Amino acid sequence: MDYYSKQISNLIGALSSLPGIGSKTAQRLAFHVLSMPSDKVHDLADALTCARDNVRYCSQCMTLTDGDTCPICADDRRNHNQIMVVENPRDLAAYEKTGRYKGVYHVLHGAVSPLNGVGPGDIKLKELMTRLSRLSEKESADAEVIVATSSDLEGETTAMYISKLIKPTGIKITRIASGVPVGGDIEYIDEVTLLRALEGRTEL
Amino acid sequence: MDYYSKQISNLIGALSSLPGIGSKTAQRLAFHVLSMPSDKVHDLADALTCARDNVRYCSQCMTLTDGDTCPICADDRRNHNQIMVVENPRDLAAYEKTGRYKGVYHVLHGAVSPLNGVGPGDIKLKELMTRLSRLSEKESADAEVIVATSSDLEGETTAMYISKLIKPTGIKITRIASGVPVGGDIEYIDEVTLLRALEGRTEL
Repeated sequence: MDYYSKQISNLIGALSSLPGIGSKTAQRLAFHVLSMPSDKVHDLADALTCARDNVRYCSQCMTLTDGDTCPICADDRRNHNQIMVVENPRDLAAYEKTGRYKGVYHVLHGAVSPLNGVGPGDIKLKELMTRLSRLSEKESADAEVIVATSSDLEGETTAMYISKLIKPTGIKITRIASGVPVGGDIEYIDEVTLLRALEGRTEL
Repeated sequence: MDYYSKQISNLIGALSSLPGIGSKTAQRLAFHVLSMPSDKVHDLADALTCARDNVRYCSQCMTLTDGDTCPICADDRRNHNQIMVVENPRDLAAYEKTGRYKGVYHVLHGAVSPLNGVGPGDIKLKELMTRLSRLSEKESADAEVIVATSSDLEGETTAMYISKLIKPTGIKITRIASGVPVGGDIEYIDEVTLLRALEGRTEL
């Protein structure tokens, strides 16, 4: 890129290292940044560094947050005995957008994936078990762990693993339903999903 | 986005203000940034602010650069009497990638577009004329201005305008060819392009 001067090349290079940003998009973004008011660019740079430097794991649910506990764990109106286990903070956000779930979360930051060398020790499973072990006897009796990992191989493997870990504690454990997505055309749904939908049928 | 803590929301907001970055992409980028090594995030932030704060117009060709002149204008091996007029630095980069053009450029930073309220005074046309007026009599006789604005309405309007401005000076002015793109299937090419291809036919 010697037809761009050094700092422009640097900027394009830095942007194109981000996931999903190819060299064309990086060029477009770079020239957009160069045309932005200087204070907006500084705000963007500060947002990047502040978030990176201050964000840590929530002490309870392991999601990323900039305080000690995340806004959800700090919220007394939520049901702290209902714990939804998700793979990452974006999945948490997806469930929050439904606006109907009133429990709390536990963020694993990944899923068990032997093919990619991710074992149970590499995700926040130990933290989940520690959290459950801290529940009083009464709380344990009321508690529910909802396993909301993805329906792909890794997510299912993780769900099975969590189930094996939690079953002996006697805490109720559930798995989100798998089936035909709303608006889905039966004709275009794969066989495995159709079988799951059949197995998971409910009375009308 | 109250399910994300403040600094994460800020970061997602700042990223989603960039062109072509929707809220999902912004979330994905934000969590990628949070997982990057801290020094890489600081490098990215510095690349943004340094480029924005130091980049200015090249004193000769008006492209964006961080020195007084851009690498191309500073290169003695280029033919400084052949000036290709382009709409923006990305178009310049596109021609540079061909690796065959050995002249220099003039970057307009836009195109005349009465519908969008962009007049000839809003793009770097005055700078082009000043640059041409500085040529010696001998240089003028050798000079060529290649108008490489886009083939859309704005680009064509701009080309016509430039042609009217330069014709009286006696400097040679040319326009890039318009026709069927290489690999293009005649069947799928629009009528106007086909007519242009016919008009611009060359002897075999």
